[in-house]
Amino acid sequence: MVYDLYYWAEIPGRGEFPRLVLEAAGAPYRDVVRLPEEEGGGMAAMSAFQEGRGPHIPFAPPFLVDGDTVVSQAGVIAAYLGEKLGLAPESEADRQFARSIALTTADAVAEAHDVHHPVGIGLYYEDQKPEARRRAAEFREERMVKFLRWYEKLIEANGSGYLAGRRLTYADLGLFQLVEGLRYAFPKRMRVIEGDYPGVRALVETVRVQEKIAAYLKSDRRLPFNENGIFRHYRELDGE
Amino acid sequence: MVYDLYYWAEIPGRGEFPRLVLEAAGAPYRDVVRLPEEEGGGMAAMSAFQEGRGPHIPFAPPFLVDGDTVVSQAGVIAAYLGEKLGLAPESEADRQFARSIALTTADAVAEAHDVHHPVGIGLYYEDQKPEARRRAAEFREERMVKFLRWYEKLIEANGSGYLAGRRLTYADLGLFQLVEGLRYAFPKRMRVIEGDYPGVRALVETVRVQEKIAAYLKSDRRLPFNENGIFRHYRELDGE
Repeated sequence: MVYDLYYWAEIPGRGEFPRLVLEAAGAPYRDVVRLPEEEGGGMAAMSAFQEGRGPHIPFAPPFLVDGDTVVSQAGVIAAYLGEKLGLAPESEADRQFARSIALTTADAVAEAHDVHHPVGIGLYYEDQKPEARRRAAEFREERMVKFLRWYEKLIEANGSGYLAGRRLTYADLGLFQLVEGLRYAFPKRMRVIEGDYPGVRALVETVRVQEKIAAYLKSDRRLPFNENGIFRHYRELDGE
Repeated sequence: MVYDLYYWAEIPGRGEFPRLVLEAAGAPYRDVVRLPEEEGGGMAAMSAFQEGRGPHIPFAPPFLVDGDTVVSQAGVIAAYLGEKLGLAPESEADRQFARSIALTTADAVAEAHDVHHPVGIGLYYEDQKPEARRRAAEFREERMVKFLRWYEKLIEANGSGYLAGRRLTYADLGLFQLVEGLRYAFPKRMRVIEGDYPGVRALVETVRVQEKIAAYLKSDRRLPFNENGIFRHYRELDGE
C-alpha cells in the first residue's frame, strides 16, 4: 500500500508533519506534487484532486490519500498515520491525548505563521511589516514560552522522555519539527530561552537520531526552511 | 458515565463545539466551570486540572474528561464524542474525513477570532482596530466565501444533505455553530452571500430542528454570542 501525500513542493510547511511520520515508519509513499507530471505529479495533480474525486474533497493541502480514505489537516493526518504505522501510544487514553497534542502543535505552527502574516493571508509580508513586528513581540515573549513550557510539563509528568506513552510517537515528531522551525525563524530568541526546557531539547535529539529520521534528514527529500514557508527568518522579527 | 466538559463560563466560544455533540446525543455531562464551587465547579476546578493531574495536561480549554481519558482541542473532542455517541459517519473513510472537516471548521473559527485580534491575543480589540479593519476586509471578501463554498461542495458531492456519510454527525453540528457565529458577527455580509449556499443553509436548519438540539437552544444552557467571545459583532468590521 503506497500512500499519496499532497503538499506544496517548495516548502516543508505543514506537509512536513505527516511526511515525518511516513519517514520515521519507513512507509512507502509518493510525494505527489514533487513528482514529474509524466508520473502523475506536479501541481496539476493536486488541483485535480481538490476539484473533487468523490465526496471527500480536502479544503487545503496537506492531504493524504490511502486507498478510499482521504485525510486532511496536518495534525489529523499525522495521527492517522501514526496510529496505523506503530508511531502512536499504546493505551487508549494516551492515544486520545496524543491527538490533542498534535492539534495543539498545529495551533503553534499557525501562530508562528501569523507572526509574518497578521493582517492577511493574501497580502505579502512587505505589506504588513509594522503589524508583524507588533505580533512578533507577543509571540516571542509570551506564546513561544507558553507552548514550550507546556511541552516540558508533559514530558516531566509523563516520565518516559516522550510526550505521551512509553515510545516515540507522531506527537514527538511534531514537536521536533516545531522546535526546528522556531530555531530557524527565531534563532536569537531560542538561544535565550531553550535552556529552560531540557526535556524538550532532549526529545528533539531523540527524534533526530532515530535511525530512519537521521537518514531522511540527510536526504534530498528533506526540504529546507525558507522565506516562502510557515517558519520564516526575518531578523527584525527576532527581537533586539 | 458522566462527561466533564471544561470551558470558560461566559462565552460559547470553542466550548460550544463539544457541547453541541453532548446535547445532540442527550449524553449526561457536567459543564464544570458553570457549576457552583460547592459542587466542584468554578474557575478553580479548571485551573486545578490544568496544573496537572497525571500526564494528560491540556494546553487550553475546552477539554473533556471521560474517566481516565482527557481530550483537548474543540475539533478533537467533538470527534471523540461523536464517534462514541453515534454522531459520526458509519464507514471508516467517512469517519476519517469527518475528522478533517471538524478541524477545518476549527481553523475557520480561529480565523473569525483573529479578525478582531490580528496583532495580539493579549491585547484588547481597542488596541488593534485599524489592523482589525484590514484583516476583516480579507476575511469577509475571501475567506468566508472560500469556507462556505467548500462546505457547499461537500454537501453537493455527498448527496445526503450532510457533510459526511448518511446521517447527522458532529461535523454538521460544527458547521451549524460556525454559520450561526458568522451570522452574529457579520450579519450584513452574510445576508449578501449566504443565498449562494443553499445546501449549507438547509443543513443548518436540519441541525436546528433536531429534537434534542431544538430543546437545547431554548434552554439556558445555550450561551448567547457576545463581545468577549470568538464571534464578535463590531459594525465597523462588517463592511460598508
